[in-house]
Amino acid sequence: MDFSRYWSERQKKVEAALNKALPAAATKPATIHKAMRYSLFAGGKRLRPIITLAAAEVINGKYENAIPSACAVECIHTYSLIHDDLPCMDDDDLRRGKPTSHKVFGEGMAVLAGDALLTIAFEIVAATRPTSRYSSADFVKEVAFSGGSLGLIAGQVADLEGEGKKTSAAQLRYIHERKTAALITSSIRLGAMSSNATEKQLAALTDFGQSLGLAFQVIDDILDITQTSEQLGKSAGKDLKAQKATYPSVLGMKKAQAEAARLTARARAALKPFGKNALPLEQIADFLLSRKN
Amino acid sequence: MDFSRYWSERQKKVEAALNKALPAAATKPATIHKAMRYSLFAGGKRLRPIITLAAAEVINGKYENAIPSACAVECIHTYSLIHDDLPCMDDDDLRRGKPTSHKVFGEGMAVLAGDALLTIAFEIVAATRPTSRYSSADFVKEVAFSGGSLGLIAGQVADLEGEGKKTSAAQLRYIHERKTAALITSSIRLGAMSSNATEKQLAALTDFGQSLGLAFQVIDDILDITQTSEQLGKSAGKDLKAQKATYPSVLGMKKAQAEAARLTARARAALKPFGKNALPLEQIADFLLSRKN
Repeated sequence: MDFSRYWSERQKKVEAALNKALPAAATKPATIHKAMRYSLFAGGKRLRPIITLAAAEVINGKYENAIPSACAVECIHTYSLIHDDLPCMDDDDLRRGKPTSHKVFGEGMAVLAGDALLTIAFEIVAATRPTSRYSSADFVKEVAFSGGSLGLIAGQVADLEGEGKKTSAAQLRYIHERKTAALITSSIRLGAMSSNATEKQLAALTDFGQSLGLAFQVIDDILDITQTSEQLGKSAGKDLKAQKATYPSVLGMKKAQAEAARLTARARAALKPFGKNALPLEQIADFLLSRKN
Repeated sequence: MDFSRYWSERQKKVEAALNKALPAAATKPATIHKAMRYSLFAGGKRLRPIITLAAAEVINGKYENAIPSACAVECIHTYSLIHDDLPCMDDDDLRRGKPTSHKVFGEGMAVLAGDALLTIAFEIVAATRPTSRYSSADFVKEVAFSGGSLGLIAGQVADLEGEGKKTSAAQLRYIHERKTAALITSSIRLGAMSSNATEKQLAALTDFGQSLGLAFQVIDDILDITQTSEQLGKSAGKDLKAQKATYPSVLGMKKAQAEAARLTARARAALKPFGKNALPLEQIADFLLSRKN
């Protein structure tokens, strides 16, 4: 398997589907559609949608059925970045190597661009073809749950409230499970659901997603310290500056690195039942562990 | 028909359903659930959900089937108020007679409370019981469309971009049709859909909603000038202060009042096909025309 070719092919599928799903940049009012597209097409890795497509195939489904879910999770992810970067939140000027939304379009428009991406995510995912086990509404509920006040938003709230305070390893895990792992887990689950996963298959892939999602965030924390802004395409060292709790700051760098490896191994173990079909998901897990940005 | 009793009974049904649909205020992380509830239970009139329930009954359906839609439109409305009130948007300190969300919880939390209400709206509406003509996904798409970048958000964008500029009557109508009438129209349509409305019935009620929604906003513009902050429960005169285009500022007060009456009459005319069943919706239209806040 040529992983980098696999990845870039899937990226292109996702880009094309997102491009089709969003109103054209010239659609009135043009500013909002430009702002939505500016952040959505800023050169993200497309990790979440690609694992959605891979999860659809791990149980012998067609990735095409997972396209609406893939687009929806990327819209949710992008909206959350736009709002996180706002001056009243993390106050960040750089994202994916480009000025953040509010730097380009102003704060009010950035709030609205996030709102619009969040809204369109549900329009897109509602168009999912139902399977015998899952209705279109099940896909909508999955996105709403992982993106909502008990998932992604819960993580952001805890993160915001924890700034400048001493954070325990348990609290940190609480934040990361919600802020990052929840949507990554849903990305996997939605793909599996689009292939009509059995309860058992869905449970195994949920385990995989939770471990992978946590591993991803631990590595993000590590890279924030070890890499430069140029390497990351976003402001490096910002966690330290904001006195944010991170795995390296709470556990120390060595233990954080060991935790990332442990979680990745655990994620891989959850894939055992799927045999050779799991190869793309395994390679994604390895890629995330070894990434440099 | 005892209209004020009808209204307060429906309000109670909506309050109870919203209370049940939202996580308890103590649910961790408590701040976000407190903030969501603070704005959602700040004493709103519940106009949108009440017309949703009324629309379900106008075609002989049960209002109970419209409860998820009713809750969803109120969550969308409340999220839009929270975000509109932010310093980077309309910068308002008072809403429904109470300090706005960002005044109480801070800007970051207010952004997140809006996001969370927007997200939960879709979770709630996805639970709508499908009818023979409408799937649960159709309800989700209706909310996403009227709340999205071609509806509510389009209106807010045009409003934001128009501040301090000369606005034509056509532009003003564009803003109001999206910022206000789109969600009111959807409120009606969702209720009708929950009662399995025919295409013809849905078209008539869409007409009603568009006229009613515009009338509502024209009257809002008028009250902003003629009433005090105490009477309104929100900052009066803020349109003037922000140099916002309004019906009175563009057409003059007399013409604005005539336009409100014309639109209300048009809304009532759209109800003709429903005979006596339309009584509650007619009374709602009259109530909106004569309201003082």
